[in-house]
This record gives sequence, C-alpha cells and structure tokens, in this order.
Amino acid sequence: MKVLSFGEIMLRLTPPGNKRLTQALSFDIEYGGSESNVAISLAQFGIDSQYITRLPENELGQAALYALARYKVGIDACIRGGDRLGIYFLEMGAGKRSSKVTYDRAHSGMATLAPGMIDWAKACAGAGWFHWSGITPGISRSAAEATVEAIQSADKQGLTISCDLNYRSALWKYGSAPRDIMPQMVEHCSVLQGDPSAFELYFDIRAQDPHELLAAVQARFPRLRYLTMSSRQGLSASHNVYRGYLHTEGQTLVSQEHSLPDILDRIGSGDAFMAGLIYGIVQGKAPEQTLEFAAAAAAWKHYVHGDINLASIAEIEALAAGNTGGRVLR
Amino acid sequence: MKVLSFGEIMLRLTPPGNKRLTQALSFDIEYGGSESNVAISLAQFGIDSQYITRLPENELGQAALYALARYKVGIDACIRGGDRLGIYFLEMGAGKRSSKVTYDRAHSGMATLAPGMIDWAKACAGAGWFHWSGITPGISRSAAEATVEAIQSADKQGLTISCDLNYRSALWKYGSAPRDIMPQMVEHCSVLQGDPSAFELYFDIRAQDPHELLAAVQARFPRLRYLTMSSRQGLSASHNVYRGYLHTEGQTLVSQEHSLPDILDRIGSGDAFMAGLIYGIVQGKAPEQTLEFAAAAAAWKHYVHGDINLASIAEIEALAAGNTGGRVLR
Amino acid sequence: MKVLSFGEIMLRLTPPGNKRLTQALSFDIEYGGSESNVAISLAQFGIDSQYITRLPENELGQAALYALARYKVGIDACIRGGDRLGIYFLEMGAGKRSSKVTYDRAHSGMATLAPGMIDWAKACAGAGWFHWSGITPGISRSAAEATVEAIQSADKQGLTISCDLNYRSALWKYGSAPRDIMPQMVEHCSVLQGDPSAFELYFDIRAQDPHELLAAVQARFPRLRYLTMSSRQGLSASHNVYRGYLHTEGQTLVSQEHSLPDILDRIGSGDAFMAGLIYGIVQGKAPEQTLEFAAAAAAWKHYVHGDINLASIAEIEALAAGNTGGRVLR
Amino acid sequence: MKVLSFGEIMLRLTPPGNKRLTQALSFDIEYGGSESNVAISLAQFGIDSQYITRLPENELGQAALYALARYKVGIDACIRGGDRLGIYFLEMGAGKRSSKVTYDRAHSGMATLAPGMIDWAKACAGAGWFHWSGITPGISRSAAEATVEAIQSADKQGLTISCDLNYRSALWKYGSAPRDIMPQMVEHCSVLQGDPSAFELYFDIRAQDPHELLAAVQARFPRLRYLTMSSRQGLSASHNVYRGYLHTEGQTLVSQEHSLPDILDRIGSGDAFMAGLIYGIVQGKAPEQTLEFAAAAAAWKHYVHGDINLASIAEIEALAAGNTGGRVLR
Amino acid sequence: MKVLSFGEIMLRLTPPGNKRLTQALSFDIEYGGSESNVAISLAQFGIDSQYITRLPENELGQAALYALARYKVGIDACIRGGDRLGIYFLEMGAGKRSSKVTYDRAHSGMATLAPGMIDWAKACAGAGWFHWSGITPGISRSAAEATVEAIQSADKQGLTISCDLNYRSALWKYGSAPRDIMPQMVEHCSVLQGDPSAFELYFDIRAQDPHELLAAVQARFPRLRYLTMSSRQGLSASHNVYRGYLHTEGQTLVSQEHSLPDILDRIGSGDAFMAGLIYGIVQGKAPEQTLEFAAAAAAWKHYVHGDINLASIAEIEALAAGNTGGRVLR
Amino acid sequence: MKVLSFGEIMLRLTPPGNKRLTQALSFDIEYGGSESNVAISLAQFGIDSQYITRLPENELGQAALYALARYKVGIDACIRGGDRLGIYFLEMGAGKRSSKVTYDRAHSGMATLAPGMIDWAKACAGAGWFHWSGITPGISRSAAEATVEAIQSADKQGLTISCDLNYRSALWKYGSAPRDIMPQMVEHCSVLQGDPSAFELYFDIRAQDPHELLAAVQARFPRLRYLTMSSRQGLSASHNVYRGYLHTEGQTLVSQEHSLPDILDRIGSGDAFMAGLIYGIVQGKAPEQTLEFAAAAAAWKHYVHGDINLASIAEIEALAAGNTGGRVLR
Repeated sequence: MKVLSFGEIMLRLTPPGNKRLTQALSFDIEYGGSESNVAISLAQFGIDSQYITRLPENELGQAALYALARYKVGIDACIRGGDRLGIYFLEMGAGKRSSKVTYDRAHSGMATLAPGMIDWAKACAGAGWFHWSGITPGISRSAAEATVEAIQSADKQGLTISCDLNYRSALWKYGSAPRDIMPQMVEHCSVLQGDPSAFELYFDIRAQDPHELLAAVQARFPRLRYLTMSSRQGLSASHNVYRGYLHTEGQTLVSQEHSLPDILDRIGSGDAFMAGLIYGIVQGKAPEQTLEFAAAAAAWKHYVHGDINLASIAEIEALAAGNTGGRVLR
Repeated sequence: MKVLSFGEIMLRLTPPGNKRLTQALSFDIEYGGSESNVAISLAQFGIDSQYITRLPENELGQAALYALARYKVGIDACIRGGDRLGIYFLEMGAGKRSSKVTYDRAHSGMATLAPGMIDWAKACAGAGWFHWSGITPGISRSAAEATVEAIQSADKQGLTISCDLNYRSALWKYGSAPRDIMPQMVEHCSVLQGDPSAFELYFDIRAQDPHELLAAVQARFPRLRYLTMSSRQGLSASHNVYRGYLHTEGQTLVSQEHSLPDILDRIGSGDAFMAGLIYGIVQGKAPEQTLEFAAAAAAWKHYVHGDINLASIAEIEALAAGNTGGRVLR
Repeated sequence: MKVLSFGEIMLRLTPPGNKRLTQALSFDIEYGGSESNVAISLAQFGIDSQYITRLPENELGQAALYALARYKVGIDACIRGGDRLGIYFLEMGAGKRSSKVTYDRAHSGMATLAPGMIDWAKACAGAGWFHWSGITPGISRSAAEATVEAIQSADKQGLTISCDLNYRSALWKYGSAPRDIMPQMVEHCSVLQGDPSAFELYFDIRAQDPHELLAAVQARFPRLRYLTMSSRQGLSASHNVYRGYLHTEGQTLVSQEHSLPDILDRIGSGDAFMAGLIYGIVQGKAPEQTLEFAAAAAAWKHYVHGDINLASIAEIEALAAGNTGGRVLR
Repeated sequence: MKVLSFGEIMLRLTPPGNKRLTQALSFDIEYGGSESNVAISLAQFGIDSQYITRLPENELGQAALYALARYKVGIDACIRGGDRLGIYFLEMGAGKRSSKVTYDRAHSGMATLAPGMIDWAKACAGAGWFHWSGITPGISRSAAEATVEAIQSADKQGLTISCDLNYRSALWKYGSAPRDIMPQMVEHCSVLQGDPSAFELYFDIRAQDPHELLAAVQARFPRLRYLTMSSRQGLSASHNVYRGYLHTEGQTLVSQEHSLPDILDRIGSGDAFMAGLIYGIVQGKAPEQTLEFAAAAAAWKHYVHGDINLASIAEIEALAAGNTGGRVLR
Repeated sequence: MKVLSFGEIMLRLTPPGNKRLTQALSFDIEYGGSESNVAISLAQFGIDSQYITRLPENELGQAALYALARYKVGIDACIRGGDRLGIYFLEMGAGKRSSKVTYDRAHSGMATLAPGMIDWAKACAGAGWFHWSGITPGISRSAAEATVEAIQSADKQGLTISCDLNYRSALWKYGSAPRDIMPQMVEHCSVLQGDPSAFELYFDIRAQDPHELLAAVQARFPRLRYLTMSSRQGLSASHNVYRGYLHTEGQTLVSQEHSLPDILDRIGSGDAFMAGLIYGIVQGKAPEQTLEFAAAAAAWKHYVHGDINLASIAEIEALAAGNTGGRVLR
Repeated sequence: MKVLSFGEIMLRLTPPGNKRLTQALSFDIEYGGSESNVAISLAQFGIDSQYITRLPENELGQAALYALARYKVGIDACIRGGDRLGIYFLEMGAGKRSSKVTYDRAHSGMATLAPGMIDWAKACAGAGWFHWSGITPGISRSAAEATVEAIQSADKQGLTISCDLNYRSALWKYGSAPRDIMPQMVEHCSVLQGDPSAFELYFDIRAQDPHELLAAVQARFPRLRYLTMSSRQGLSASHNVYRGYLHTEGQTLVSQEHSLPDILDRIGSGDAFMAGLIYGIVQGKAPEQTLEFAAAAAAWKHYVHGDINLASIAEIEALAAGNTGGRVLR
C-alpha cells in the first residue's frame, strides 16, 4: 500500500553535547518534521511511502529533499516555492534541565502554501492512505486551507486518513483557534493520535480516565476506527516512563510500560508511534500487536539521535519482547 | 570619541571545511553583519564603540548580544523585538569555486524596525560619529524610514556621518530602488565607501578611471570629505589582489597592492577597511597613512575566520609595512 | 547595587567526551574560576557585576577578559601583568570514575599579585558589595597579602563583604596554613559560605550537626549575617543528591533536597549557590526564598557545560518549584 | 534516457585535515566508486540514473545504498550478498606530499559477484545506456566474467555502452592481465575514456601525440564514436593543470586549459568528466560543447569534498565560461 | 616476569556520540583486541608485557603497532604479513538499545597466520607467562593450528599458560567447532576465564550454580589452578551489575557486586578482568585480593573510552575499596 | 648505533583550522620539542633512538612519555620531577598572517633540572651519539648547568656530539647570554646546525656569504666535522622556498631548492633536517646525499601536521628525487 504523508519538514539545528544555544559554536544538522518522520519510518518498514510538502528553491530545500530520498521516501509530489525553509533550534536537555525548542518557521514554503498549488488528484492516484497532523493547519490560514483541500481530495478518492493532533502552542497565531478548524477536518479520519490536552483544546473533551477520554472522542467522531494516545512520566529529561493506549472496537488497550533511562533524543517519538500504528494496521496485525509494536517503536526512538527512528522491524520487535539493551550484539 | 554603528547583526552558518550546504552535517556559528563588524573592529582599536540594532527576545538575539559584548562593543542602546534573528548561510569556496551566500534575513527584528522605536536623541548623546550602510535601507521600507530617522537625528546632533554603500542584489525587494532613497541619505555623510557598481546603481554615476569616478561622486555630494573604494582582482576564491583608493581634498590616493594568496575568509574585509578608515580619521592620521592602514586592515581580514577582523593595530601596521607572513613569531 | 568579585580566572582544558588526559587529542576550552563564576552568574541575574583580577599581557589573558565581557561583567578594574595565565586540566568523570582536576596555576599573574598593584580606592568607589574566596590567599603569600589589602579597603569603604572558604588542598604550599591567615580576613565578612572540612581546617571548628556547626562559626565571627553550606551525597560521578543550609538570625534553614541524575558538569555549582545567595540578599528576599533560589541555582549548574551557570532567573525558579526536566519546552 | 552504471561502491575513510593514516584519530566517511560517482553526477544533471552493484547484507551495505538513494540514483537493481563492503583509505596530500590510496577491497560483495546473480534482462529493460569501467574486471575473475555477461546483455538489448578504462595497479591480481580480457569487452563500446598508460597496458597502443594515440585506439575499435582522455600536470598535490581531449568523427578536440590551484579533493574528477561526457552526448550537444562541459565538470570536482561532483549544470557551465571563483555569490 | 600475549589486534571504528552506523559521518578510531587489551593493561600495571601478532605491511598495520608501543607493550616479536588488518565496527548503544559489533576481520594477517611463521622458541625465551584466547582458533583453521603450535611451545618452555575462552558466534565458520579443538588446547592451561555458555559450547559442561560449574570445569582440566568467570545483569546498555567469581584450591570466591550506572564503554571489561587476574597471580596476592582487584579492574573499564583499561593500580584499588566516583579529585 | 637526544618535550596546543588563540574553542594536542622531534625522526628511520628529559609526575608528563614511546623512542632514561610540563600555544598562520608561538614553559620539570639528577654514565653506556640543542641552556641556569654536565659526560665516554643552536629570543631570561655559555659547550661538538643570527648572537661571527660564514664557524670550532644551516624565503606563511647548506671537509655544499607551497605545518622542519643529517652521517652516506636527504626531510615536514616528521625514508627520498606530489599514489 502506498502511504502519503503531508506536512512541513524543517532544518533542525542542535548545539552538540547538550550545550545551550547561547554557548553553541556549531550546530548539528538534521532535517525533520512530524509527518516526514512518519514517512521515513514507514519507508524503513518497507512500505511505499510518499511525502508531500512545499520547499524553497534553494540549497536548503534541496538538502531537505536529499534527507528524504536517502531513506527511499518518494519525493516526486513535492513542490518548490516560498521564501525559506522552516528552522527549529533544539537545546537538548539533560537531567533536571528540559529540552527546549525555539521555532523559526514562519514565512516558510509551507506557511505560504495555498489551495490549488498541489495537484492532489495526481498525488492521491494509486495511494491507499493519507497522513497529516495538526501542525500544518496551525502554521497559517492558507496552510490550513490547503490541508482542508488535501483531506477532502484524499477522502473523495477513498484513502484511509490518519491524523496526529500534535498541538504546538507556538503556532495558531493567525487568528483561528484549533477548535474552529480541527473538528471538521478530523471528521474525515479513521485513525487519530492525540493526548488529553489536545482533546480538550481541539474538541473540548476532557476526562481523567484514558478509556473514558478515548471513548468520548470516538463518540464525537464516529468514523474513527483507531484512536491512540500515550502517557509519559518525566522523571527527568534523561529518564521517562512511557506507555501507549489504543482504543478500537469499543475497547481501550494499554501497552506494556517502557522505562526509558539514559535517553539520547526523544524528539520524534510520537511520530515513531504513529508510524508503528499505521504499519500495524496496514499489515493487518491484531490490535494488541499493533499497539505493542507502536509503543516499542516510540520507545526505541528515544535511543536514536535526530528526528528519525532509524530502526528495523526486528529491532523494534526485540524491544517489544523485553530486550533490555544490556547485551552487546556481536 | 564615541562611535555609533547602526545595522543588522545576523547569525552566520557555515559548513566546516569548505563543504557545500547540501553536504553539511554541521554548521559553524558566527555572528556578523557589515556595521557590527565595523563596530567590533573599532573596539579592537581601542575606540569607544557602540552598536545599535533590534534583536528578537529569544536566545539567538541574546547570543548576538553576547558576541558583541565579548569585544567590548557597547550594547546598551540595542532594543529587543521582532520575530526572528536574520540568518545567512555561507558556502566557503576555494580555488575556482566561488563562495556563496544564501540569505534568510527577511522578517527579522531589523526588517520590522520602524521610526520611533529607537530613542535616537539618547543614543546620540555624547557620541561623535554615526556609521550606517546601504544594507539597512535595502531590507524593508520601514527599516529604510528608520535609517532616515537615525541619520537626521545624528546630523542634527552634529555627529560625523559615514556610510558604506554595500549594495546587495538580494535586498531592495520592497518596491523602492536604491536610487529613490539613497541620495538624500548620503547627503548627510562626510565619509563614504562605495564601489563602481554601487555608484552607478545608487547615483547613476559611472567612470572608468577611479579618480574620475570618485571626483564625480564628490561633486554630487559636496559634504563628503573622505570617499573610498577598493579594487579586487579575483584570481581565484583563494587568491585575490587588493588595493584601496581614498579621495580627499581633491586628490585620489592609491594604496599599495596587496597580493592575498591562501585566503581563509574574505567576508568582512570591506568592513575592516571601513573601520580602518574611521580609525585613521578619528586619530587624525595623514590621508596616506589612513589609507594604508585601512587597506592593510582589509588585507589582514582575509586571514581571520569569521566576519570579524581580530587583529591588533600593531599586526595591521606590520602588514602595511610589508610583513609577508613568512616568519614564525616566537 | 554594584558587586565586586576578586580572584583568579583560569584557562580550563577538558578532554571532550569524558576522555582521560592521557587519551586526549584535543581539549575543550573554558575560562573559569570560583569568583569569576560568581561574577558572571550575578551579571546573568541583571546585577551590575565587576570583576577584578590580574592577567598576563598575552592573548590568553585577553581571551579570559573576552570570556568575562561576553556576559557583561565589568572588567575595567582588571590589571595586566605576570608571566602566565593559570590553567587547570579537568578529566570529566562518569559513573564510578571521579572527575579529576590537575592544577597548573603556579606563577600566574594572580600568584605574583602584590599589595599596591590594584587601586582599591578607585575599584570600590560606587560599589556596595565585595566578594572574595579562600582560594586567593592559598595561591601565594603575596596574593594573600593583596587579598588582605582588598578586604580592608572594601571594609573601610563600607562594602558588604562575602567569602566562599573554598579550601583547595593543592594550594597553601607557601608556608602559611589557612588557620594562620583566614580568621582575621573572615572577621570582615558578613556573608560566608563554607563546609565542614573548611570550618575545621580554617577555624578549628567541628560539629556533626549542621545547625550546631554553623552556630559555632557564627559565634566565632559575630559580624556574619548569612552563613551557608551544602551537603552532597555522591552516588556516582553522574548522580549526586544536593541540599543547601542557611544560618541566619540564629536559625538554620534547610533547602529541599535536589536529586541530580545524569550530571553534565558539576564544576562551579558552589559558585552558582554563592551567586544565588548574594542575589537573594541584594534583592531583599526572605531567607527561605534566598536559600531555595541559591540551592536551585546550584542544582541547575549541574546541567550546564563549563564553569558558568548559564541560566535565567526564571529557569532557576522553575527548578526550585519542582520542574523535573521531563517536558520538552516548545 | 535511462542510464545504467555498474560497478563497486566502497566505504571511503579519510583522516580529516590532511592527517596521515598513522596519525588519524577519526576518519571522515564517504561512499564512492568510479561508476557510482558517474551515476550520481548523471542524477545531479537530471538524468534517470540507475546503479547496479552487489552489497553485503549488513549496515554498511545499507549505508552505501542510502548514499546513492540520497541523490535520486535508482537502486532497485542492486543485489545483496557477499561478506563485506570494499573499503579504501585515503590520505589526502598537500603541496609536495602526494595523496595516497590504500585499498582494502578484496573479498567484497562485488569481488565475489558471479555471472547469473544479476538479472540483466530485467535491469536493461527500458534503459538506453550502460556504463562500466576497467576496475570491475580487475577485481576478481568472477567479477570479470560477470562484467562480460553484463556487457553482452546490454549490447544485445541495444544499449549504448561506455567504458572508463580506469587502470588500477593494485588490482588485476588474480592471474589475468588487462590485455587478456579488456579488448573483447571494449569492442562492444561506443564511448571510451582512457589515458596513455591504460591504452598501452590494455591494448598495447602507444603514441606521443594525443591525436595520434586516440586515432590508433579508434582504428582498433571501430564501434567507438567518442574517445576521450585528459592530461594533468601536477605542479603539486594542491595545484594541477588539467585539459581534456575528445576524439570523434576523425578529429581530436582539445578543451581549454584549467589551472586548478588550492585543490580540495581531486578524487572522482575523471568520473566527473565521464558523466559530463555522457550528459553531453545524451543531450545531443555539439562535440566542442560536450568536451568543454565534461572538462569543466572535472575541473569543478577538484573543489568538492568527497568522491561526488556536487555541482549543478549552471555551476559547471559558469566554470566553463571562465568563472575564476573570485567573486562571492550573494 | 615477562608476560606474552598472543592474538589479533584490530582497527575499531565507532560512530561518535552513539550514532548508528548508517548515520555516521565519521568514525572514531581505536585499536583493540582481547589479547592486546590484556597486554596493555599488564604494561599499565608495570609488568614487562610483550605482544605477538601478525600485521599487514601497510600503514594500518603500522598504526596498530604504534598503538601498542605507546603503552610500552613490547612489539619486537610481531611479524608483518597478510593482506589486511581486521576491522570491527561498533555501534555504541544506550539505554534500551544494545551495543552492536559488526566484524570485518576475515582474510586478515592473523587469519592467514600459519604454523612456522612465528619463531616461538625465540619469543618464549625469558618469558614466564603465555596468554591466548578462544578468539584466535575461531578465526581460521590455520590460525587455530598456529595457536596450537604456540601453546605447545610455551608449555614446553615452562611458561604458565592462561586462556580467556571468549566465544564469538560470528567466528568458527571454517568447519571445526570449538568442542573439536579447544579442549586439548585448554589442557595446557593453568589459568582459565570463561562463562557458562562457553563452558557448554566448548566443553559440554553446564550447571546452574557457579561453584558447581567451575568445579566441573576444574575436574575436567586438572592442571587449572585459577578458574574465573563473571556475571553481568544488564539493566540497560548504560547500567549493568557486575560480579566476578574465582575458583581456586577447591573453593569458589565471589567478588563484591559492582553496580555500574552511566557506562561509557564496556568493551574490553573481560580483558581488564583477565589482566587484573594475571597481575594478582604474578604479584602473589591472596586469592580474595586478586579477585577483588580483577573485578574492580573490570568495573573501572566501563568508564574508559576505547578497548583499553587506562587505569592505574591506585585507581582500581580505590574502586575496589568502595570509591563511588562522587567526589571531584583535586 | 644508539643515539641519545636530550631536551624538553612540551605540550603543544593549537587552535584548529587556523583560528586565533582568542577565537579558539578547542585546542588540538601535540607533544613536541626540538630534540624529541629529532629523536622520533631517528626512530622512524630505524635507528635505536633514546630520549632523555625530566617530566612532572602527573598525567601530562605521562602523556608526553606515551607520545615518545608510540614511535619506539626509548624512554627508560627519562626521569620524573618538577612541577609542570612546559606548554606552548601555536597560532597557525596562513597567507600574509604569520604563525605565532606563545610560550608557557617556565618552571617546568626541565627548567628545574639540575646537575646530578640524571645518571649520565648509565645513560651514555652503549650509546654512540649525543644530541642537544641551544634551547635547553636558554631555559634556566640550572638547565644550562645540567646540559654542560651531559655534554662533558658524553664527550668523556666518546660519543659523537651534535648540537642545533636553535636560538629562541623568548628564552635566555635568567641573566646569562648565549655568548657567555654556548661557545664552551659547542667546543665538544662535531656536528652543528645553526643560522646566521645564531652564529652572530652565540659566537659573534657574521658574514654575508654562506660559505664564508660556515668556514668562519668551522675555524672557531676545529672539532666540527659537519656544519649546516638553511635559508628560507617566506613568500607567505603558506609558501616558503627552502634550501640547505652543509659545510664539511672545507667545502660548502648547497642542496636543491625546495619550493614549498600550501604548507600544512612548518614547525619542526629544522629538527627534521637535523635528524636527516644525523641519519646520513650514521649511515655513512656521501655528504651530497646526506645534505639532499636532510633538506628533503625538512621539506617533507612542511606537509605533516604536528611537530613530528612522520615520513618514511622512501617518501623522503622520493621528494629528494623530485616528486612533485601531483600524482595520487594507489
């Protein structure tokens, strides 16, 4: 099955060695974004994965394309335009010091994307799945409109639609609130990833109990077939405890708990979960297996530098099966 | 004498080791800009040097301030605001491959600077010199208006005003051409640095012979007392031949020729010249000495990484006196 | 209030990545010292902070000045002289391997400082606080004499005087023991930071209970108004448990306990505490708040590379308020 | 037109900064090989470029595939197998010190390639060009046999066949000499790149004059339509003078002379020439233009780190048109 | 006492900063191997340590010799020959991600070593101890035969013989299984290090209880006087719990338990144990002290980058005595 | 023949990439000194080379020993003591910017060396040659006295004595001038390397013509059998023209001229010459060959990073034979 992912890929700049931004003398370069992270994970799992975005006609736009092509993500539907590539600066925390993201993504190619620029009929041809996230409608009004256009095209052509709500408080500055826009977009989805604060901000739904919460969202969006979220206990920036939830067919499954000490880079772990979920569904795995695979994919991501979950299916399954990491593989 | 410099300082990102942007896995970080380069050079020469700009309220803006304060440039008149810090990406060329600058400076704190934001009366108090360049009015209409405000304030308070014409073809995108704006701003100046293409683009003045050209500019702007330009023969990206010209009191002086092999980083050499010129004038040096110092400062800059001319007066004078670099100093 | 700090700033050389000195192929460069760390912290907190030292007339001395000026610490009272800049080599430990400092600081500009070299009358003018530490009198006899001169000047001009006892066993090699020299110097102080071994070595005071110990020191030096120490349990080089104590107005307050896993760099955490203490006192905070702020400043320092506590007041207060570091700030 | 390239891609390990192998504490990583360099250049020029090789089933084989896919080279015809990825160590020379290659490529996946492993009928389907080099038959007897199989398949299916003779004295250790094997393989070619020593070693043809030499080779292999070689004067490891020759339709054209000072990395310049040649032919350029483009492509390669000629058509054409590199492009 | 160690030293290539092999842009270089790690540790302890191997006649072979000589290991008995230096690639894991070794050691100088190449009579002259490991006979049949030759020579000349069983599943590919070869070689040994899986694979001996297991091996090989193994609980790749066992004179001693958080590099910890054991025996320490020293040496190794246990006797003894690492040594 | 070299080895700290000291964020580490550079070169040439110095009992002293042992220089006669290891900071120049050495070598182990500390009778036993330089007597009075002791012992035991005059203006600060001390030390030598300024400063001998100058020195010191110097034209820091002179048996031979563009690191080229000279004499080469080898060794050194001339005899002979470096060796 061909899976389309649509969103913004950015230049990520990280001071090496946990330095602060104001101490940095160099930046490590990564290219990443929520939806492209999903696309690359899917390509790693052997799925025909296509990415759609709008990038400036300069060498940074080209470098972003190279970063996708490297992992065999299809880039033929990407278009070029706009003035700049979005950037985000990442201070990698440690211990009691939080990691910190500084966005510099306004005015990017995706921020100035507008309906009509991408040929969605052509892009959707032959595809079976369309993935987007709540980041894109938060970037700008025209990006939100372009997302609506994309979702409607995908739905018309019969693609399965998935969404990661991905609320970012630094976005949504253009006048509309998520609650004005997101519900009608989510109505087209059959797979949704969220978290309690996004459910509240986007849909005004809140509940203490995960099952109750997910069931309420399910009730609101009856087309949903898979509804997920995760819980994360942050003992420190370097040690989290992680767990995934999957609501499907009226039940809420809970994954094993992953204690994650000595974290290398947790950015993109939600995207790793999302990709694991899509993979499990596409492969027709049982819900329990799908959830455990997705949660283990997210867990594994904490131990890879960069936004991308560079892991094989076998490696993720080993972690799901209880591999502690304590052995040297020779 | 207290010297004010006004302009935009940017984050400069350079792939190490002459790598191309699309090859880069890390960027070396510098902070630089034409006017701040002048300000830092002046501080290196022991002059009370103050810099005025507008920087965003984030860690990158803070880092730019640190980069200035490190060299004892006064930053008390800097203001905070705007959405982002301007960035420029630099591919350092070598041999037959040119160096290449990719700007990402739109929408910066300086691009959204407007008249009234800076308290020029206070900034100019106690100062004797005001330096600006043609970059700032090229950024945006409001930045151009703010520059006019600054020049008029400085002139009213009796400061000597210097300008580096610094034409950048990637700027001037907002509707006005340099010729619409620059002449009335340059009329306030008594010191001007330019080059043949800027004289043509800004003032419609052209001539083959340097003396004829500079004399024509002088005739157009009678307040000018020092008028400079340089010639550069680019044998390759790594080897240039450089010469400075100074027109003053009706005569055009020509500096010694500097053959510059094995260049490390030529960015900022024009700013190094400008600072050397201001220094010579402020110190009351003879025009010949001033020119040779300025040209040697520019020559020296080719051998310092980054935008900033980290050189002592003694080092520049040694180069002016014919030091070939061939000896190890112990 | 203008705060003066007086002491030695050194070149710190650290093998990257926890390498041993004998493995190192490069050294990371920092500039730091107990009192300059305090001075920079205070400047970070917005206080007018001036540093006074003696540095050689070479590029390393200049680099140390740049490192101070970068953070807006005033350096106008620094003098140049002496043969060399003190150096310390740091092997950063991990787990069960201790960090290890190798000093190479003998014969430095500060080691050959003598009374009369610094114009203390001028330096103290306009200042309200003078900070020194037990390191300086331990360097050499003449440095000890110069410290006495400084303290007497400061006291005469009515400055509040603070001292960090900072015992270093590698110092005090010139014939005098701390006990011969320190008590009469501490008599001028109203703020003192120490630890049980320093109290014993310097003053022959010992006690098991923190309150008893601090009360005994208070009794010995009646001018003291704030007396602090900390306890540190070293589970490993990477995980410490930290707590601060403040004795004032007859009471000994104890801060919350900070469990500090995954430490990046604990050098300078005592200086961070000292700066937090001075800041709290200068701001007129309540003793409880002052202590919690100082302890959180020390805790935060464990997560910043280098000697300097690059942290904002808000970041430290967040840690004091129980921020675990587990969230990514966006 | 779809162009197939067939050969071995290796892991290249280079000590940074011109260090000697015995000094090196780290190696910079590149992936390169003569034919894959051609394939990537062609993809950079916008041609549908496919690469065919055999790589081990480990992460290094995977990394080589990523390096190709990054630049949009098609890798679907690559097969996995064999015990190891070939490696070459490169000491980058400077001035009077030559660059030095140490091969560690025996026993690689390509060295154990044998006829029948690759499905050439499928690989050639839809393709118009097949490129190979004299390296592959030099690796091992079975690789030579597999190359013969490839050439015969390509010829049968009507592909244009090009060959770079690429003599490597460290190869050809398995018993056969180039002269035993190469002539019958070259008979299928219509495009050939060589040099005087290869013509002598492979075909026993020698002549002082380039035209005479190329005409003699042409006479020996009547199917040839384009026959090229280059001359290189090595003033030092850092400064070469380069010129290309193209024999076609009975005439020998000579390119402009490229003086190449301050070389960054000359590895792969012959492959850059080859790709420029194929590009010119495929585009139907005139022979003079084709030669100048190919020679300028080779010249440009000296200024890009790594094996790959990361250059746009416009950049190469600018060099062909006499761009000295002396200007900063902004 | 002069101690000979015999085995293969390899080039180790590690992506810096826990990167994956497919992410790596550079490799950190180390030279290591089980027996050379022992040899270097012994030299660090002040013992006359000689290493014997076969290395190719190229710069990599030379670099391996330099790496040994640096630590005063005698290399005069090393011979040159064979086509290549063995390489191993190491992905350093973290947290739940295991470290991973990819071997590229086939066809090395040691793999093509054959009986008669090394002059064992000369090598053993004046020596008192011969150390080998189960890796060498696993490399190739001829290497196994050369090991037999070495052991027989050493035994004939009265050297104490020690062996580390060191089972590597990636070896033993040439037709013989360990059980066919190892028992008769171990019969010559008086010191043996193993682990439960090696005892089973090599000797078909298994038991749950360490004492029972070691006693069974002792019974099988009556010449053994010291028999050791260790247990390791892998909480994660970054946190292990380690314990050593020593069976001697009918008793099985158990070392203190070492909890090892925040591991830097555990490769070579078994070799560190082996060297500690040999050192203790050679020094005539009591078995309890010998075991505690060896176990502490192994523990310390987890905190040194590279294969080599760069630690002084005093540092290891401090760890054995309960040093937590929590103090900064000044 | 066993050759002893006696002098000071220092820690060399160099900012990477031609950065200035005040810009440096890290230092590259080398260990070097004039006499140890000679010792290592000789070991590279296969000569039994022993080095004698005094190093502090800390890890930096240990690291210096490792750096020597790595290249098979004998270190058994080195003694430990003194407070610190001498350091020198090197700013690597480029083009018109000179390289610059900042010494921090006072108070080192060698500076406090005194007669009686080294057992010269034992050190000289079995040796045939003793090499020293004018640096050691310039360090301190006691180092000068210890050098006299060494020379007298060596002469008494019949060793050939060589000296490199090596004048350093930053030394000789302790009261004696070279002219007071050096002549009686040089009287014991039969091999001497100098330069016009040293001949003048040390012996008050000057002449324009090289032959005249060397003949005059020969006349003054009749035991001399080989007397050398070199001329160097510094076109820039990156391009020198170099030539060696050898006066022996009444004649002055002049080497070929070496034009040295694109210099990597010229530090230690004089030591490379000295080692080449000793090697030629020890091997009994003809004077012409000896001179050309020594000059080519010096020329080669310009292309190796660090103080040490990492070059094989074959490589140096290739350069002497006119190798331009323009070929890639494969």
